[in-house]
Amino acid sequence: MTGNMSRRRAIALAGAGAAGVAGVAAGAGALVRVATEHASADPGAASGAVPFHGEHQAGITTPAQDRLHFVAFDVITKDRARLVELLQEWTAAAARMTAGKDAGVLGAVGGVPEAPPDDTGEALGLPPSQLTLTVGFGPTLFRDAQGRDRFGIADRRPPALADLPHFAGDALRPEISGGDLCVQACANDPQVAVHAIRNLARIGMGVVSVRWSQLGFGRTSSTSRDQATPRNLFGFKDGTANLKAEDAGLLRDQLWVQPGDGPDWMTGGSYLVTRKIRMLIETWDRSPLAEQEQIVGRAKGTGAPLGRTGEFDDPDFAARGDDGQPVIAETAHVRLAHPAQNDGAHLLRRGYNFVDGSDGLGRLDAGLFFIAYQRDPRRQFVPTQTRLSRQDAMNEYLRHVSSGLFACPPGVRDGGDHWGRALFA
Amino acid sequence: MTGNMSRRRAIALAGAGAAGVAGVAAGAGALVRVATEHASADPGAASGAVPFHGEHQAGITTPAQDRLHFVAFDVITKDRARLVELLQEWTAAAARMTAGKDAGVLGAVGGVPEAPPDDTGEALGLPPSQLTLTVGFGPTLFRDAQGRDRFGIADRRPPALADLPHFAGDALRPEISGGDLCVQACANDPQVAVHAIRNLARIGMGVVSVRWSQLGFGRTSSTSRDQATPRNLFGFKDGTANLKAEDAGLLRDQLWVQPGDGPDWMTGGSYLVTRKIRMLIETWDRSPLAEQEQIVGRAKGTGAPLGRTGEFDDPDFAARGDDGQPVIAETAHVRLAHPAQNDGAHLLRRGYNFVDGSDGLGRLDAGLFFIAYQRDPRRQFVPTQTRLSRQDAMNEYLRHVSSGLFACPPGVRDGGDHWGRALFA
Ligand code: HEM
Ligand code: HEM
Repeated sequence: MTGNMSRRRAIALAGAGAAGVAGVAAGAGALVRVATEHASADPGAASGAVPFHGEHQAGITTPAQDRLHFVAFDVITKDRARLVELLQEWTAAAARMTAGKDAGVLGAVGGVPEAPPDDTGEALGLPPSQLTLTVGFGPTLFRDAQGRDRFGIADRRPPALADLPHFAGDALRPEISGGDLCVQACANDPQVAVHAIRNLARIGMGVVSVRWSQLGFGRTSSTSRDQATPRNLFGFKDGTANLKAEDAGLLRDQLWVQPGDGPDWMTGGSYLVTRKIRMLIETWDRSPLAEQEQIVGRAKGTGAPLGRTGEFDDPDFAARGDDGQPVIAETAHVRLAHPAQNDGAHLLRRGYNFVDGSDGLGRLDAGLFFIAYQRDPRRQFVPTQTRLSRQDAMNEYLRHVSSGLFACPPGVRDGGDHWGRALFA
Repeated sequence: MTGNMSRRRAIALAGAGAAGVAGVAAGAGALVRVATEHASADPGAASGAVPFHGEHQAGITTPAQDRLHFVAFDVITKDRARLVELLQEWTAAAARMTAGKDAGVLGAVGGVPEAPPDDTGEALGLPPSQLTLTVGFGPTLFRDAQGRDRFGIADRRPPALADLPHFAGDALRPEISGGDLCVQACANDPQVAVHAIRNLARIGMGVVSVRWSQLGFGRTSSTSRDQATPRNLFGFKDGTANLKAEDAGLLRDQLWVQPGDGPDWMTGGSYLVTRKIRMLIETWDRSPLAEQEQIVGRAKGTGAPLGRTGEFDDPDFAARGDDGQPVIAETAHVRLAHPAQNDGAHLLRRGYNFVDGSDGLGRLDAGLFFIAYQRDPRRQFVPTQTRLSRQDAMNEYLRHVSSGLFACPPGVRDGGDHWGRALFA
C-alpha cells in the first residue's frame, strides 16, 4: 500500500538509524507477544484458530461464534490500484489475525519507538478465539449512487447482486445501510473481534472510510448440529430450522454460488444480506405467552413447533385444533418463512443480538442484527422477506432500520491469493 | 407492587380458571428451566453464582466480570409507596436472578397461556454467570432539577453526594447523564446481564423509565489480585494499580462509607461515579509508540511503569533519564492520577470498553465506560479528575460525553431486607 504502511516503514527505518540496533531490540522485547498470558476471564472459551484459507470463506458455515463486530466501508480513493493493494494488505492482516499472530507483528515492526505501533495492541496476549473475517462487495462498488463505474468493474457485477426492493414497513436509515465493502468479524471474545475490525480500518486509512458498524453481543443462531440453539431477545430459541454446516446437499443448492450461476469470480462464494431489526421488546414483554407462541409458531420453552414436542420435530402446518383453527397460525413467523412457502428457499442465518443503549423514550434500543447467506437473494431473501413483511404477525414488534447486500467471494486459496483477486484480475 | 405484578397475577388466576389445571401444568412443563442445557459457547466461562446478600453490595469488589449492562432510570411516579414497593420487588428479582433462578419463575407463574410470561425468557437455561446487580441513588432522587423533594428524603441526602463540578473539556450530553436510580449489571455472559436489566425495567414499568443505558463488552480493570490485567482500547494494560479486593485496610479507608461519614443509611455503602469517555482511537493509532508510552507513563507491552521492568513494580516518579528529563513525564496519566498527587486518594476502577458503532465521520464510536467506587467523591474522584482534566496528556485523545453520580447503599442483609430500606425507613 502506498499510504500508511510505507510511510510507517519509512519512519521505522529512520528510527532504526537514529536509535541504533540496541534500541530497536529493546523496543521489540517489550512488546513481544506474551503467549502464555490471557487477559480474558474465560479460560475455557473456544479459543483456538479457524483456518483462514480454503475453498469458501470462513465465517459462513463456521459454527457461529458468540460475538460480532460488523463493519461497512465506503471506498474513498478513486485509484483502482490502491484499492487492490489494500485488499492484498487486508488479506495478509486477516490471515495473521485469525491465526492469533497479529500482536507478534507489533514487536517485529512497531518496536521502533519513533513509529506508530504496527498493531493497536488491545488484543495482545489474547488467543485467536475462533476469529473469522469475511469480506463482501456491495452493489455500489460496481456502480456508485451517481452511476459511476469508479473501478472499471461494472460489467462484473453479478445479476444476483440486484438492489433489494423496498419491503412493506421498511424504516431504513441510509447512513447505516449499504456500503462498498463489508467485513464480518466473529469471535468468541469481543475484544478480538473489535481489534480485528479496528486494525483493518487503520490499515485502510486514506483508501476506505468506516460507513457504519455494529456490535453484536450474542449469537442468535446455530450453524452446526453440534451447537445448542441460543435464544433471541424475544426469549425464543433461534436457529432451530437453520441451514447447518452438515447439510452438504442443501449447502450446494442453497448457499454456495455454483459454476454458471453468474460471473466466475463468485463461484464458491455466497451472497450476504444484513438487516438491523429493532425489536420492540417492552411491547413484546406485555403480550401473553400464548400470543407470543402463536406469533412465532413454536413453544417458548422447548422451541418445538406448536403441536409437537421436540425442538427438532418437523412442524405440521396442516394440523388443526379442536376449534378447527390451524395449530400453527396462518400468520406465524415459521410458517411464512418456511421453505414450503417460498419455493424451497432456505437461508443460512447467522445473526446477533444487539443493545445500542436506549432510545430516549424509556425503551431499550435493542434487537436482532440479522445476517443471512445464500446462493441467490432474488430467489431466497427477497421472496421470503416480501412474504414476511406483508403477513408476519411479528411485524407489530419489529422495525427494520438498516439493510445491506454484499457479494462474498470464494475463499482465499493460499498465500499467493487475496480478497478480490479474481474480481480485479 | 401495585401496577404490573398484581395485574399479571390477576390475569394468571383468571387464566387458571379458564384453562383448567391441565393447561397450567402443560404450560409450566414446557417452560421449566432446562438446567443441563447451556446456549453459551463458553462452557468453561466463570458461570457460577455470586452471593447477593452481605454487608456490602456485590459488584464492587467482586472480581470484575467480563461484560456490563448499565442502566440509569428516572422515577416517573410521585408516589413514595410505589417507589418503595418497586425497590422491594427489584430486590427479590435481583436475589433470584443473581442465583440463576429467574427462568424457573417463568414455569411457576407464567405458565398460564393468557398471562404475559413472568420472565422475558432469553436467559432460559443459562447459568448465573457471576451476575451481580448493584443499585445506586442519584442526587435527583433527593431533590429533582426543579428543586422538588418528591419522596420526602431531601434531608437524607449525603453531603458526599454533591453534584460533580464542571471539568475542563467536559462535553457532557445531559440525555445520557445523571438519573434518579442506577443499576449496574455485570456478568460473564452478556445475555445474562442484558436479561437482568431488561427484567428490572419490565418490573418497573409505570414507576421508572429507562433514562439511558450502556453496554460494555470487555472489562478494563482488575479488582482482585487473582485476575490478569486486561487491556483497554488504547492497547494498554488497565487496572494494574487499582484498589483490589485484597487491600483490606485501603478498602476501609478509601472504598466503604464508615460510621459517621454521613447519614447512617449509607454506612457500608460506596459512591459511584460513571463517565462515558469517547476515545479517539484513530488519532491514537497514528501516534508513535514512544509518545503513547509517555502519555500513559507505562510500557505498552509489559504494563511496567517507565523505567522499571515488572507490571507491578512501583513507579519511580523522581527518576530522570540521561537527558535530565523525568522518565515518567510531568503530564503522564499515571503520575497525575497517582494517590501521591491527590492527597492519598485511591479509586476502585471497574470500567468497560464500549463500541457503539461509528460516528458518521468514518470513526468508531468507541471508548471507556469509566466506573469508579469510592468513600467520598469530594476527596477522591473530584480532585483527581480536576487535575487530569487540566494536565493529562491523554486528554487530546479523550472526550467525556456522559457523567453519573450515585450513592450505592450497603448490602441487602437477608430476605427481609431490601434496596433502600434504611433510606426510606
Ligand atoms: C427480529 C426479527 C426476527 C426474529 C425475532 C426471528 C425469530 C425466529 C425464530 C424464533 C424462528 C424459529 C426458530 C428457528 O428455526 O430458527 C425463526 C425461524 C426462521 N426465520 Fe426468523 N426471525 C426474525 C427475522 C427473520 C427474517 C427477516 C427472515 C428472512 C427474511 C427470517 C427467516 C427465518 C427462517 C427462514 C426461519 C426458519 C423457518 C423454518 O424453516 O422453519 N427471520 N425466526
Ligand atoms: C479513557 C480514559 C482513560 C484511560 C484510557 C485510562 C487508562 C489508564 C491506564 C492505562 C492506567 C495504568 C494502569 C493502571 O494502573 O490501571 C491508568 C491508571 C489510573 N487511572 Fe486511568 N484512564 C482513563 C481515565 C481515568 C479517569 C477519568 C480517572 C479518574 C479521574 C483515572 C484514574 C486512574 C488512576 C487512579 C490510575 C492509577 C494510578 C496509579 O496509582 O498508578 N483514569 N489509567
